[in-house]
Amino acid sequence: MDSAPMPTATRARTKVTAIPGDGIGPEVMRATQQVLAAAGAEVEWEEALAGAEAFRRGIAAGAPQETLDSIARTGVVLKGPLETPVGYGEKSANVALRKTFEMYGNVRPVRELPGIRTPFSGRGVDFVVVRENVEDVYAGIEHMQTPGVAQCLKLITEVGCERITRLAAAVAQAEGRRKVTVATKANIMKLTEGMLKRIGEQVLAEYPGLQHEHMIVDNCAHQMVIRPEQFDVTVMTNMNGDILSDLAAGLVGGLGVAPSANLGDEAAMFEAVHGSAPQIAGKGVANPTALLLSALMMLRHIGDFATARRIEHALYVTLEEGKDLTGDIAREGEGVPTAVYVERIIANLGRESGAVPEREYRPIALKRWPQITWYRAASTRELVGVDVFVESERDPRAISITLQAAAEGSAFDLTMIGSRGAQVWPDIGGHSFLVDHFRARFMFKEPPKGNGIAEITDLLQRIGRQHNWMHIEKLQRFDGADAFSKA
Amino acid sequence: MDSAPMPTATRARTKVTAIPGDGIGPEVMRATQQVLAAAGAEVEWEEALAGAEAFRRGIAAGAPQETLDSIARTGVVLKGPLETPVGYGEKSANVALRKTFEMYGNVRPVRELPGIRTPFSGRGVDFVVVRENVEDVYAGIEHMQTPGVAQCLKLITEVGCERITRLAAAVAQAEGRRKVTVATKANIMKLTEGMLKRIGEQVLAEYPGLQHEHMIVDNCAHQMVIRPEQFDVTVMTNMNGDILSDLAAGLVGGLGVAPSANLGDEAAMFEAVHGSAPQIAGKGVANPTALLLSALMMLRHIGDFATARRIEHALYVTLEEGKDLTGDIAREGEGVPTAVYVERIIANLGRESGAVPEREYRPIALKRWPQITWYRAASTRELVGVDVFVESERDPRAISITLQAAAEGSAFDLTMIGSRGAQVWPDIGGHSFLVDHFRARFMFKEPPKGNGIAEITDLLQRIGRQHNWMHIEKLQRFDGADAFSKA
Repeated sequence: MDSAPMPTATRARTKVTAIPGDGIGPEVMRATQQVLAAAGAEVEWEEALAGAEAFRRGIAAGAPQETLDSIARTGVVLKGPLETPVGYGEKSANVALRKTFEMYGNVRPVRELPGIRTPFSGRGVDFVVVRENVEDVYAGIEHMQTPGVAQCLKLITEVGCERITRLAAAVAQAEGRRKVTVATKANIMKLTEGMLKRIGEQVLAEYPGLQHEHMIVDNCAHQMVIRPEQFDVTVMTNMNGDILSDLAAGLVGGLGVAPSANLGDEAAMFEAVHGSAPQIAGKGVANPTALLLSALMMLRHIGDFATARRIEHALYVTLEEGKDLTGDIAREGEGVPTAVYVERIIANLGRESGAVPEREYRPIALKRWPQITWYRAASTRELVGVDVFVESERDPRAISITLQAAAEGSAFDLTMIGSRGAQVWPDIGGHSFLVDHFRARFMFKEPPKGNGIAEITDLLQRIGRQHNWMHIEKLQRFDGADAFSKA
Repeated sequence: MDSAPMPTATRARTKVTAIPGDGIGPEVMRATQQVLAAAGAEVEWEEALAGAEAFRRGIAAGAPQETLDSIARTGVVLKGPLETPVGYGEKSANVALRKTFEMYGNVRPVRELPGIRTPFSGRGVDFVVVRENVEDVYAGIEHMQTPGVAQCLKLITEVGCERITRLAAAVAQAEGRRKVTVATKANIMKLTEGMLKRIGEQVLAEYPGLQHEHMIVDNCAHQMVIRPEQFDVTVMTNMNGDILSDLAAGLVGGLGVAPSANLGDEAAMFEAVHGSAPQIAGKGVANPTALLLSALMMLRHIGDFATARRIEHALYVTLEEGKDLTGDIAREGEGVPTAVYVERIIANLGRESGAVPEREYRPIALKRWPQITWYRAASTRELVGVDVFVESERDPRAISITLQAAAEGSAFDLTMIGSRGAQVWPDIGGHSFLVDHFRARFMFKEPPKGNGIAEITDLLQRIGRQHNWMHIEKLQRFDGADAFSKA
């Protein structure tokens, strides 16, 4: 049960930054605001600019300072789709807003809607994908290693894993859900993906009301198609979550009806996941359902559970009856204009639908993270070697000879040469086809006396006489354990 | 139409390495071999060991030398599921076999089967996922950057992109397909994922009989659920392909009926994708369909199109009629033992099914890659700076002061500090929560005279007096373009 509505007189209106955005954005925003107003949502809108117009005005991040100021002030955003015009901007305005306000958690409810026919209709699909939103390969830190070999860094942090897991647990608690599935590729990436598995399991053990399980992420994608009913809340790193949340949206009608929230300590941004659909923009036929469902998440976020419930029931009644739907979801005919669909939802306010899952909503209890540079101390640290990535057109044996000669008289022994994660020297068979990018592993003959930098820079100069190196990684041990993969 | 069967007398028997594997592996292998023998496949099996038993014998890669020798001799493998017992092996035997023989292409047909009911039945889903198999984050090259920050390298090569795209084109041509969809995350990872987009589009333009398109990979996952009929052949990097191929298998009945091939220059390995199912091993009830479908791919690979066609029709007739199916796919009752299912398929040899897609198969024309260390030369190269990754618990402004002081008098200027891909110095707002891992970008004040190593090692020593650095990337320009991302 939602909590009972509070008398209007005692409720302050909550300020919310509204970013209509591009394409159909202004139309679906207006439609959503009309429904919220008719339902009596105590929201005061601050309209703000972001997207194509901002880029064209020369604002590199796609959002002017006034918009950032408004978000900093209100802490709550409802946002339409944003475009990055071709030729502008290194990153999208969406990514910029998420990063500026460290909205580290992306929450994507995946719930069957009445009247939206899919191959999974009637099975009661109802789960939430929680996706880490600021780390992983998504950071886009890339370096060409050689003219034909590109590298991107996948960075995962313990605190990032803890934050996203606690958010998943908070989402589960806020919606009375019982299980959290941590989905990772820990079997292949033991340190990065394995970190979410390890931290996720540790953190979730603190929530006795929640069951938790781990699932390999490719199996999770498979299971979402085979038996989506089994999921309740899932949590994933950024790139995996990107793919699986879009997959999941497809199970219940697609991006046109998929809401989302981006949550952080300083701000929460609610947005439709779909694009700006420029081909139908301005025609008054866009479907505002995704943004309206996002607005319901927003109303619950600001504590207005009763209004969210009123609108949710009216929307479900409208979808169930199937009259006056927009063209993309109409069950017969060509569909009606956005305005007629909105009128119908408003007319249905006060009606109750049996299709809305009975759920006791509470606010999402986000842990507040201190404004610091986070770190974890290690009780012991050792520097045991260095991986030097070299460019060479030669074969591994030839490379081993010059590298061993280079290391002669240095503090290091060459112990292994690898190519894309496979050992190619000492020879263990196979690998007749190679690329000009090799990792040479050098281990200290004996532990360095000081910080080891003199020894490493000496080695780099020796190697540099014969080989072009482009990338160095120290090999460390933390708390007595190797802090690097073997191969 | 398949080509007409050649008279047996003129056909040599092709040697194939059979690896029964673990759990239900021996049962499904025996079943598959029985069907092939009954259909007159001209195959001579060399049985070989890999998996749990090999690990227990102390063979770190999970496959003894005799097995590797057999594969090197035959060049063709049919393989059951392999286990890695807990506590053994850094990598699975599957991965080891793929890497040893550089089987760079994973081919996963996704085709609706008669009588296997799924939410997508009747829509004629029929496409192929081609996944790069040896590069990407799958290489598992990981380094802890600080005690709480893990890193994995995502490595993508031009030649790897070319090879996998040519394989996708060859698969399309071998099966008379018309379209190849290149699915990447090029919008976020311009150098790595963007490489597959760029090379893929270049290579596919050489095949006038094939249409090609690019799709963002998360949208591709969404489209596979929304409208899987649109796909013909898709091609992806390793991790994305891992997830999307398992998703796709779910559309047509799941891993229990999903065949696959791993292709390379030196060997081709055909295997079921499912696990070893130890809970039903030895009970004689396992479903051999996935391995049998894999064996059909193998028969076509060795040019025995007629036998493949005979078995495919018999299998489809069996599935359509629905009598004598194993428990996992039985439409009523508890299902029959493996042996009864196999007898039924054999009894149906010679019958024709209308459900088998009419398709003119040709051998997959794999380009043979030279046994070299591949490289691409750049016409010009410049070394313009270095990214130094430092560990620090301080805030970005404090770090910038010490780093600038360290660079004072060096060949470099500090131009930027980033945290997980976002600029945090000079300050552009936001980012109150940070981790102890920062990237400091140093640009040469003027182009270095020599190879720049003396200047870099000087900088590293200066920085090392105040900061712990653990990772270095040279900033290069190839052919006049920045070979690194801006942020």
